[in-house]
Amino acid sequence: MVLEKIDQVNDIKKISPEEYGLLAEEIREFLIGKISQNGGHLASNLGVVELTMALHLTFNLPSDKIVWDVGHQSYTHKLLTGRKAGFDGLRKYGGLSGFPKRKESDCDCFDTGHSSTSISAGIGLVAARDLKGGSEYIVSVIGDGALTGGMAYEALNNASQLKKNFIIVLNDNNMSIAENVGGMSEYLNGLRTNEVYTNFKTGVEQSLNRIPGGTHLANQLKKTKSGIKQLFIPGMLFENMGITYLGPVDGHDVGKLMDVFTKAKRVKGAVIVHVLTKKGKGYDPAERHPARFHGAEPFDIQTGLPKNKRKKANYQDVFSTCMVKLGQRNENVVAITAAMPDGTGLKRFKNLYPERFFDVGIAEGHAVTFAAGLAAGGIKPILAVYSSFLQRAYDQVLHDVCIQNLPVVFAIDRAGLVGSDGETHQGIFDLSYLSSIPNMHIMAPKNKWELSDMLKFAVGFDGPVALRYPRGEAYDGLKEFRKPIVYGKGEILYEEEDIALLAVGSMVKTAEVVRRKLKEMGYSCTLVNGRFIKPVDTELIRELCKDHKLLVTMEENVRSGGFGEKVRDYVTDHELPVKVLNIAIPDEYVEHGNVSILYEEVGIDVESVTKRTVEKYITVKG
Amino acid sequence: MVLEKIDQVNDIKKISPEEYGLLAEEIREFLIGKISQNGGHLASNLGVVELTMALHLTFNLPSDKIVWDVGHQSYTHKLLTGRKAGFDGLRKYGGLSGFPKRKESDCDCFDTGHSSTSISAGIGLVAARDLKGGSEYIVSVIGDGALTGGMAYEALNNASQLKKNFIIVLNDNNMSIAENVGGMSEYLNGLRTNEVYTNFKTGVEQSLNRIPGGTHLANQLKKTKSGIKQLFIPGMLFENMGITYLGPVDGHDVGKLMDVFTKAKRVKGAVIVHVLTKKGKGYDPAERHPARFHGAEPFDIQTGLPKNKRKKANYQDVFSTCMVKLGQRNENVVAITAAMPDGTGLKRFKNLYPERFFDVGIAEGHAVTFAAGLAAGGIKPILAVYSSFLQRAYDQVLHDVCIQNLPVVFAIDRAGLVGSDGETHQGIFDLSYLSSIPNMHIMAPKNKWELSDMLKFAVGFDGPVALRYPRGEAYDGLKEFRKPIVYGKGEILYEEEDIALLAVGSMVKTAEVVRRKLKEMGYSCTLVNGRFIKPVDTELIRELCKDHKLLVTMEENVRSGGFGEKVRDYVTDHELPVKVLNIAIPDEYVEHGNVSILYEEVGIDVESVTKRTVEKYITVKG
Repeated sequence: MVLEKIDQVNDIKKISPEEYGLLAEEIREFLIGKISQNGGHLASNLGVVELTMALHLTFNLPSDKIVWDVGHQSYTHKLLTGRKAGFDGLRKYGGLSGFPKRKESDCDCFDTGHSSTSISAGIGLVAARDLKGGSEYIVSVIGDGALTGGMAYEALNNASQLKKNFIIVLNDNNMSIAENVGGMSEYLNGLRTNEVYTNFKTGVEQSLNRIPGGTHLANQLKKTKSGIKQLFIPGMLFENMGITYLGPVDGHDVGKLMDVFTKAKRVKGAVIVHVLTKKGKGYDPAERHPARFHGAEPFDIQTGLPKNKRKKANYQDVFSTCMVKLGQRNENVVAITAAMPDGTGLKRFKNLYPERFFDVGIAEGHAVTFAAGLAAGGIKPILAVYSSFLQRAYDQVLHDVCIQNLPVVFAIDRAGLVGSDGETHQGIFDLSYLSSIPNMHIMAPKNKWELSDMLKFAVGFDGPVALRYPRGEAYDGLKEFRKPIVYGKGEILYEEEDIALLAVGSMVKTAEVVRRKLKEMGYSCTLVNGRFIKPVDTELIRELCKDHKLLVTMEENVRSGGFGEKVRDYVTDHELPVKVLNIAIPDEYVEHGNVSILYEEVGIDVESVTKRTVEKYITVKG
Repeated sequence: MVLEKIDQVNDIKKISPEEYGLLAEEIREFLIGKISQNGGHLASNLGVVELTMALHLTFNLPSDKIVWDVGHQSYTHKLLTGRKAGFDGLRKYGGLSGFPKRKESDCDCFDTGHSSTSISAGIGLVAARDLKGGSEYIVSVIGDGALTGGMAYEALNNASQLKKNFIIVLNDNNMSIAENVGGMSEYLNGLRTNEVYTNFKTGVEQSLNRIPGGTHLANQLKKTKSGIKQLFIPGMLFENMGITYLGPVDGHDVGKLMDVFTKAKRVKGAVIVHVLTKKGKGYDPAERHPARFHGAEPFDIQTGLPKNKRKKANYQDVFSTCMVKLGQRNENVVAITAAMPDGTGLKRFKNLYPERFFDVGIAEGHAVTFAAGLAAGGIKPILAVYSSFLQRAYDQVLHDVCIQNLPVVFAIDRAGLVGSDGETHQGIFDLSYLSSIPNMHIMAPKNKWELSDMLKFAVGFDGPVALRYPRGEAYDGLKEFRKPIVYGKGEILYEEEDIALLAVGSMVKTAEVVRRKLKEMGYSCTLVNGRFIKPVDTELIRELCKDHKLLVTMEENVRSGGFGEKVRDYVTDHELPVKVLNIAIPDEYVEHGNVSILYEEVGIDVESVTKRTVEKYITVKG
């Protein structure tokens, strides 16, 4: 075993070049073994084994710095920097993160998670280095998918201007999570298979060499600025922006990679190294289905099939089915995703109504304003987007959709705690950032039927609407409560007195159990599904105040700006004779781990809510 | 007068081509006249007179649609669409907006204000048109400055993919508000002055024609895809992305513009028309100082000098001076702006410490993560940014700065109501969107000395800090109260009992007057400067609860997620024996107008606060 020889950073430099192939193989075997057990990002990590090895062989960590864009492809990097033993706890509570973390290792120089940040962060480190007179290399590794994010372009634009030494590695596997889209992708495709170009270049050079003064001209050409250079140098799009282009190079050949990185070290200014890799490389099921093996659940290595068969539908399945029906009924309905056709459940809609499906790439800001344009043109866009990624488009929601009161539907997926992806991906801010926006309406379904009803309601609504629902299994309890959605109205599920649990979205399920517990303890307890976070149902609150001494608001969102504060504002503004207890996520980032453990940690699990409710009720009763 | 003949949309088509020059002249005279009286965006509007005329002459409004990026250059468009009479009320309360507004005219198809949205919105309108089977032309007019925003690139990427007919007009004046920066800008410069290129192209064609088979080769080349085409077609960066490029064309020649727009109509797919314009065109002072005449105060037409001499320093002047001192004292201090070196007051810092000054272009997302990278590299970045533009970087603040708890200072300018720019530019959400973010700290100064003290405190603080201050004249009252900033602590300015006014930032000035009024009315009243919005000074709140019956929180921000809710939460969580009244901006967009009128409209002026305080106090006293 070669991998056994690697216990800490730079141990890889002790391995002989003949063993590189073997090491890559062992790393793949190790990763497949661990991820098949625990789940995790597989395809992207298998794609960058040699790339990571070559970076570690060419550069000196931790003084040299590597910023991993998105960061879910950093497993080999973690393996090579003393974290091999941690892989059994990968993405588990208290264990290794699935993303780079500065607090985990001094070889992780910048935390990532969302897409397209690495060039910006890299230039920051570069500028800091130069101000401090350092000489370390800074390398940002970015995928071609992440390059569709506007921020990456803003950063390239800036990198070119600063003219500081900076190495960008373009890890080009021709995919983001799903297939890549857009002009940049086509352009990279052109570079990848540029045979026509290569032949032509040779031809022109030969032609020029044949005419008088032609050789001189050819040499001059290579030196000129502007468009002409294109003829002799691929990657002109980058060169046009003032960034040196090297490549493309085979991303699974350690030797060639080391050569090109060594060359990149000598370039003055910013350089982009174009590396071609294959997602899932070395594991057949992942090579064939890279999207399925993007973020994988535990699977059987032989077959590649998931170990745990799902018994119940996910919210994404419910959304998927509902979108198909809506698309059938209303030809004005279109669906938009920012590079997540699979994750959001839009694939069926895409297949059935391709002309009404838009995958705009990893570009949430554009996605939202594009939706606003569609709505201004009389179409009904539904943008399916993960809660934490919609953060990227806060201004576009506020500025392009809501000022004009345009009827865009935001289907906000992965709302609430998402679990093993951790801090960067928790969808616990959406109720707050959306609530601050005038004209916005926000709903959350208690169960799978309500998601469907709310989506229908949203499509018929003439203004911006967000509905947010969690990752994973759809709640199928409380089936007996299915009343039409009425604007701004909550619903009373069980009516008693003294204590009223006023929950929204995923917390209705929790509240239902809390209520049973409280009843067992002898308390009288009402259960209300808030349905609307904005506007809150003030009439219902007034009603509840008559027979209740305590209102307990429950939401899977931070407290500041959330649902509970709105209820509390109303109650105290009107001096209503009731106390309010806000159950929400505290003002802290929530790390990775099993969601049920996280619920306990942040105090929104059944036990915590029950305990806090009883404590509060005792003080209220006096 | 030719302009007199134009009362409504398409009237311009009745003008004979011989009169175009005269019309342009009269429009300029009209605009200079009105703006010199009332203030407004001058330089950008003078630059697009002929461009706008040519668009109106070539297209059929309102069925054809023009989306104006940013939108402050839409004055000629307003003139040509029946709004001439409204110019006396331009940017005034209840009058014409300085930006396109759908509610103002059916010739305004999409509201704009922030940069780089027009291509996204345009593609949305294009997709809607095609789904509805329409045949109208959609035109997005975007400046070269706005093209540095990542969203524009996301949209170009998408436009190329959709392959739908769509016209993008690149209004290239080689400036955003200040000088343009970055690789894209250099690239456009190259296109602008591509003499070398043009000469070379001719040379190569001639050379090729001279060799056997060369003519055929040259013709073939023009048809090939990929890089080779660069040799024969300018604008290859766009062509590389799959977008047809036309131009560059003189943006002050109506005939040539009409020709190129007519040509653009015939292009299949997306086309970009590169138009060269001059900011301030036709008015000498504006041509010479386009930045000063970007958003102009009323000025003397003869001299170009402002009519109203400023008597007092602006907050921006105070910030400017303070930055110079901080830069001198601490060589780790760097300053970052997203294309606003003048507006934010960073110009002096830039001149004194050019190597520590970074203008990243209109790219707030990148600016924030770049700052995070600098901070991770041990440097102390101060990002000066307008409140409403920082909305663009909500995710970057949350994801790249605050998760890692990096010591970035956000100097948030134009916080609160900004006045005549209106809804898109009001900085009334920052306390809310920043408060929801863990690890963030937020302060607001009561007067100019406190801005300086807080900035010093922020630079010494080891974590993310935001300080927000208004546009315009710095408050120089309450000079006698200047105590050191202590983490998380507010300050009591006048201590009495019964009523406590607990104000932050700009509202301390208002609160001071309210307090005097209340005293005159016989009330006993304490005045507290909250200083910290996050964390709130809970110890102080506890203290106030002892001798006061009513706490009145005051902030120039929306209520949801703001300062007042935090105070209220603390008081009610701990059942403190005091009532809370939250004075904040209601959940509505606030239109343009004089700030003092807007204060009244939203109920945060002295009268309204006094009245509401007295009313509440009466109910509290019982």
